[in-house]
Amino acid sequence: MSAMTAPQSAAESAANISADHPGVNELFALLAYGEVAAFYRLTDEARMAPDLRGRINMASMAAAEMAHYDLLRDALQARGVDVVPAMSRYASALENYHRLTTPSTWLEALVKTYVGDALAADFYLEIADVLPDEVAAVVRGVLSETGHSQFVVAEVRAAVTTSGRQRSRLALWSRRLLGEAITQAQYVLAEHDELVDLVLAGPGGLGQVADFFDRLQRTHADRMAELGLD
Amino acid sequence: MSAMTAPQSAAESAANISADHPGVNELFALLAYGEVAAFYRLTDEARMAPDLRGRINMASMAAAEMAHYDLLRDALQARGVDVVPAMSRYASALENYHRLTTPSTWLEALVKTYVGDALAADFYLEIADVLPDEVAAVVRGVLSETGHSQFVVAEVRAAVTTSGRQRSRLALWSRRLLGEAITQAQYVLAEHDELVDLVLAGPGGLGQVADFFDRLQRTHADRMAELGLD
Repeated sequence: MSAMTAPQSAAESAANISADHPGVNELFALLAYGEVAAFYRLTDEARMAPDLRGRINMASMAAAEMAHYDLLRDALQARGVDVVPAMSRYASALENYHRLTTPSTWLEALVKTYVGDALAADFYLEIADVLPDEVAAVVRGVLSETGHSQFVVAEVRAAVTTSGRQRSRLALWSRRLLGEAITQAQYVLAEHDELVDLVLAGPGGLGQVADFFDRLQRTHADRMAELGLD
Repeated sequence: MSAMTAPQSAAESAANISADHPGVNELFALLAYGEVAAFYRLTDEARMAPDLRGRINMASMAAAEMAHYDLLRDALQARGVDVVPAMSRYASALENYHRLTTPSTWLEALVKTYVGDALAADFYLEIADVLPDEVAAVVRGVLSETGHSQFVVAEVRAAVTTSGRQRSRLALWSRRLLGEAITQAQYVLAEHDELVDLVLAGPGGLGQVADFFDRLQRTHADRMAELGLD
């Protein structure tokens, strides 16, 4: 996970939002669908793996998504919410993101895995900053760095060091991933008032949303450098 | 997991086989490939699920396979063996089993999940009975009932109660699953002398192998009854 700025402490923000804010259930449901969608996409894209080791790495990452899903399902259940109907509301945005970013090579699949995972984590951790402690703890637990995507860095760096063409191609690909992620995030916010309320209830308010998209682009740039794509 | 007969205690058998028997690495490698193959097959077959809940159940089962794989990889690593090259030797038998038992409906996929999982568990637990305690513990740990396939029972029973045609069709399907599993198990034994040595080194010797295939058919019949397919 890249370093991130924390605009305010959990203690400050906890004063603003209560744990039973309706946006909290929506956030957990969105995250839950994201985990299941990522599970199936990773296993699909693993078909492009050149060898058994690659397929195993992708399967391990996919399995980690389901462990995260279990945490979210339990958290929603504790709040009296049935996860499946709640998460179904986020199907279209997440399926659209994956449909519009279907990789055509193994390297594109690797970059998507790494960047997509990190972007999602940034997005959710930023939201966690404005949540009450107990809710933020669930979000941070789910999205804690598991180290599963580290195998990607070595493989992508090796490929782009030896081929300038691969490097330009993957740099373009990663910009497309960022663009589609931002587009879908905006759709999700436009269609789910409770989530917007949740974000706006934070101490930064509306200005914070604009800053958020700026920060997302900066952390994305850091990650491109990590992969040798800057 | 069905009840099983334990032909002899671990203490008796431990006298016969040492933990560094070369068949132990082979057994762990075979199990490891089985877990990864099952992971990808479950996620493939989940495409036939009629709804999100079915896809989530299949994804949870697949994720459990990868947790088992991690245990086996660690056990092999502790024995100085690199899991990936070791497991590759079992690719053909396991891929053949899955290729020859590709379900064509969601109910067939469910029955395959339940029966295939249980057959594999029987097979490996029988072998565990002739292993030294420390090795048997790894095998039993990996194959311990996780309860993930219990959702299958209700869904299959409901379908076969209302349709005699489904019942005959799935009963036939489950006999085919058993037949292919036994065929592939025999291929594996024929091609891997260390595994045969491991089984024959047990107190029952050759007679035990014949008894084993008998018991496999009996426990399979119990499971058919559980699914309403007797």
